[in-house]
Amino acid sequence: MDRIRKQLDFLIEIDKIKSIFRQTYITGEIRHENDAEHSWHLALMALILSEHFEEDIDVLKVLKLVLIHDIIEVYAGDTYSYDEKANVGKFERELESANKIYGILPREQGDEYKDLWLEFEERRTPEAVFANTLDKIQPVILNYLTEGKAWIEHGIYSDQVINRNKDLLKFTPKLEKLFYEIISSAEEKGYLKRRDN
Amino acid sequence: MDRIRKQLDFLIEIDKIKSIFRQTYITGEIRHENDAEHSWHLALMALILSEHFEEDIDVLKVLKLVLIHDIIEVYAGDTYSYDEKANVGKFERELESANKIYGILPREQGDEYKDLWLEFEERRTPEAVFANTLDKIQPVILNYLTEGKAWIEHGIYSDQVINRNKDLLKFTPKLEKLFYEIISSAEEKGYLKRRDN
Repeated sequence: MDRIRKQLDFLIEIDKIKSIFRQTYITGEIRHENDAEHSWHLALMALILSEHFEEDIDVLKVLKLVLIHDIIEVYAGDTYSYDEKANVGKFERELESANKIYGILPREQGDEYKDLWLEFEERRTPEAVFANTLDKIQPVILNYLTEGKAWIEHGIYSDQVINRNKDLLKFTPKLEKLFYEIISSAEEKGYLKRRDN
Repeated sequence: MDRIRKQLDFLIEIDKIKSIFRQTYITGEIRHENDAEHSWHLALMALILSEHFEEDIDVLKVLKLVLIHDIIEVYAGDTYSYDEKANVGKFERELESANKIYGILPREQGDEYKDLWLEFEERRTPEAVFANTLDKIQPVILNYLTEGKAWIEHGIYSDQVINRNKDLLKFTPKLEKLFYEIISSAEEKGYLKRRDN
């Protein structure tokens, strides 16, 4: 019973990511998206879109990676990807948070999940590459659908979004094609700024 | 490209379940939980707790079931489990919604996911039994942690919660033991009413 109690303590502690908000807005009621919703959305994308990744991948592994990738934010909080200053020391903060949150679980299970988080962060496997692809493109889709609200608030340029996505998207060519269509349209509509040079 | 566009339309439409709220409150900021957060939480429970189910189960299948089980609420809305009147005709409403939402996907993929939803609803397989177990016990845990707020608002009796959970929990004995501890404590603290008879 000691084992299941530790597992339950972990499952209760991670309830907190429902209150950790991202810069992205959701469609419909237009409010910031939280980490739990974001992770659920990535899991659905993984199920529906994995056939388009150029290699055969283990879908269960991809699901694990996307479902847990933001749990470290329980203590480390969300860091906006385009905020260069806030990103200094991000990995160290998150590693400390990972040790704390996964330390609640039974030892070998905690180690397993902490290692999955590192696999995601380091893009060590095809599954981690695909999971990161989804993590990057999902906010692009939501930002586009909410008329660029988050991009406009932060004055984001299209090349910033492209630089963040291009290397990952190479492995999912059909998604890559859609991505560039979205970016062009977002530039035209004024959701993203275009760099003049 | 036609196939991936349909898939994307589906993934965008289901963003709406982030705005479908349940009666249960989340911990921390104490607000109602939405379907997307709830589904994410069940997925984590499935990963961490599947070892306690009495049979070997396919964890990928369990994840699919919990991740998609509430998508039909995009059009059918949430029905409070203890509201007997609201539950009349629930399945028919949800089936209609399932046809509509899964109809957005490419035909054979839509059929596959609609069938997964039916498997969950009909508790057809061990995986569906476990997925339903998690779906029922997760709000019990949150209601307990939020000082019975949702139970008290609706005047819920402990036997109502027990009747809803007991048959499912038999297959996960350690979780069953924890469940009865929670119910006893909830009665003592006045979170749940006790039936006098």
